[in-house]
Amino acid sequence: MASKVCRWGILGAANIARKNWKAIRNAENATLTAVASREPSRAKEWIAGCQSECPFPTVPEACDYDALLKHPNVDAVYIPLPTGIRPEWVLKAANAGKHILCEKPCAPDAGQLRTMIDACKAKNVQFMDGVMFMHGKRLPLLRSVLDDGETVGTLRRVATQFSFAAGDDFLTGNIRVNPALEPLGALGDLGWYNIRFTLWVMKYLLPTKVCGRLLTEHSGVPLEFSAELFFPGGVSASFYCSFNTELQQWAHVSGTKGSVAVRDFVLPFYGCESEFVADRPVFNVKGTSYHWESHPKRFAVTEYSDGTPDAQETNMICTFSGLALSGKLDPTWPEIALKTQLVMDACLASARKGAVLVDL
Amino acid sequence: MASKVCRWGILGAANIARKNWKAIRNAENATLTAVASREPSRAKEWIAGCQSECPFPTVPEACDYDALLKHPNVDAVYIPLPTGIRPEWVLKAANAGKHILCEKPCAPDAGQLRTMIDACKAKNVQFMDGVMFMHGKRLPLLRSVLDDGETVGTLRRVATQFSFAAGDDFLTGNIRVNPALEPLGALGDLGWYNIRFTLWVMKYLLPTKVCGRLLTEHSGVPLEFSAELFFPGGVSASFYCSFNTELQQWAHVSGTKGSVAVRDFVLPFYGCESEFVADRPVFNVKGTSYHWESHPKRFAVTEYSDGTPDAQETNMICTFSGLALSGKLDPTWPEIALKTQLVMDACLASARKGAVLVDL
Repeated sequence: MASKVCRWGILGAANIARKNWKAIRNAENATLTAVASREPSRAKEWIAGCQSECPFPTVPEACDYDALLKHPNVDAVYIPLPTGIRPEWVLKAANAGKHILCEKPCAPDAGQLRTMIDACKAKNVQFMDGVMFMHGKRLPLLRSVLDDGETVGTLRRVATQFSFAAGDDFLTGNIRVNPALEPLGALGDLGWYNIRFTLWVMKYLLPTKVCGRLLTEHSGVPLEFSAELFFPGGVSASFYCSFNTELQQWAHVSGTKGSVAVRDFVLPFYGCESEFVADRPVFNVKGTSYHWESHPKRFAVTEYSDGTPDAQETNMICTFSGLALSGKLDPTWPEIALKTQLVMDACLASARKGAVLVDL
Repeated sequence: MASKVCRWGILGAANIARKNWKAIRNAENATLTAVASREPSRAKEWIAGCQSECPFPTVPEACDYDALLKHPNVDAVYIPLPTGIRPEWVLKAANAGKHILCEKPCAPDAGQLRTMIDACKAKNVQFMDGVMFMHGKRLPLLRSVLDDGETVGTLRRVATQFSFAAGDDFLTGNIRVNPALEPLGALGDLGWYNIRFTLWVMKYLLPTKVCGRLLTEHSGVPLEFSAELFFPGGVSASFYCSFNTELQQWAHVSGTKGSVAVRDFVLPFYGCESEFVADRPVFNVKGTSYHWESHPKRFAVTEYSDGTPDAQETNMICTFSGLALSGKLDPTWPEIALKTQLVMDACLASARKGAVLVDL
């Protein structure tokens, strides 16, 4: 790659992609060459909207999907297309030699994701799923606390909940509840984060068994889903994701010595420092005195959630661009995306069979 | 009842009873007549310990169980005896005409509890389980917030976790893991609170189905247990309780409009106000801006956790004493104790059958 910056194309003028427009704009080692839509006129309109608010020095080109993949000045593509058609375009992008940042859930199932990842490997292009929280400054700090042996001790339980209240229009009109486009519904859209966070805590050890439960569905698409994951060594994890419940995005990790709570693990609440709180309560029971004392300890990093230079989405684009520019691929990203999808598949398989235990 | 104060007897010189010694001492409408142990000498020693720290004007008498139940100056008994032998002594106490404050889990199963409750009804004595958090100042405030229609909206999910790390000596020597004395282990000792809090949130609507899972056990006694409860209308609840995980005691209630978090629902952490935090986050997504804003609102009442006049345990003794003195029994207390035990039984039955769904 001759360029000193990674030249991006966005394959699909989706709402979510506006955020990555800004992240590409803010990343020092990235620029945006083109945006594709089925109808280039739609891409043009979309570009005009973003450009008026957050301009690139050179206006990105509007084109259709095929033209984007053939574009000589596109090194990497961000693919926010619906899950149902994503595998097809990931394969095309890989075959066109483009590095791929892929929205989640990566594919309708792990089999298709494996094919996509194999294609990327064969063509020597980087694959990564677009999980922004993986790139925040908070996780390294949280890792050091989880690993210190004292704050949490030996892990026992991980609990996460991620939801937002979608509203009736969403549930009838939105692609996120269309079985052909988003067959995994809230499990794919939200549960992907629950599972990824849990796997991150577990250092990507896979659960040996999972149990999933479809709490609410619409045309077979999960709207509300809960699951429990069982790991070697007795650690268990529960998660809940929902389109029926107002925004919550919390995680709680507890062990033999204490616990850590994160109230916004997916996207740090705007205007707040990115933080978490550890607690190692003390029993103070003596005679007729019966105290439980809390000793919360706050850990924080300064990080903003709106496309500023150190936002997690900007870091994601920077990291990906660096990998693309270096030519030295990182096999960890496709591997953890696949693990996430394997766990998701097993949770859904369990739910479809009436919440039986499913082996991984 | 001629007395203006309720005259208590403590049936069993247990550690946990020291706290209620202090609560009886602090309650204006209560006094302590006697403490019983199998060996009166043990009760005498126990009384001396408590008396030196938190004295009654008249030193309570030491006696054995039968003498306590025959004592003419005992109106109400607090029974902290182990679960395995509790039904026997509750029946004897009821037949002796004593009002009964019963430690939890009330009985090894709901069938035995029903017999106990029927005996109390037949003898016209009050029955109540010793769930102190029911008597804190926080719950009425939390109820008003849950019912305001705006903060949480329509309920969707309740999650609670209650645990403490018991240590190896506990797991081998403590009665709480002895199958004859405490057959319900952590599920009875801790899960009782998870279930009660959840039922309280649901205004004592019973779940239609539950699923329970024995995560760790010792001689058949649950040491770590998780469950999910399914209510009419689509509300679901999960809980986790454990003797293997350091102290945590949090609850999270979420609905279509927001959520409420309580970090210490069982026993307010010492030195802290009794509080909870509501949040109704706002999505602020416009163009390339993508904010999620948190709007936490703290609610607090001043309440202390160590036997002071407005501590929840003191309130419990006051409320119970008031009922006993009035002669007008409150049937709600035995009813909600029974519901708690029914849900617990169903969770354990589910777990014993491999976490199948069990109907209630």
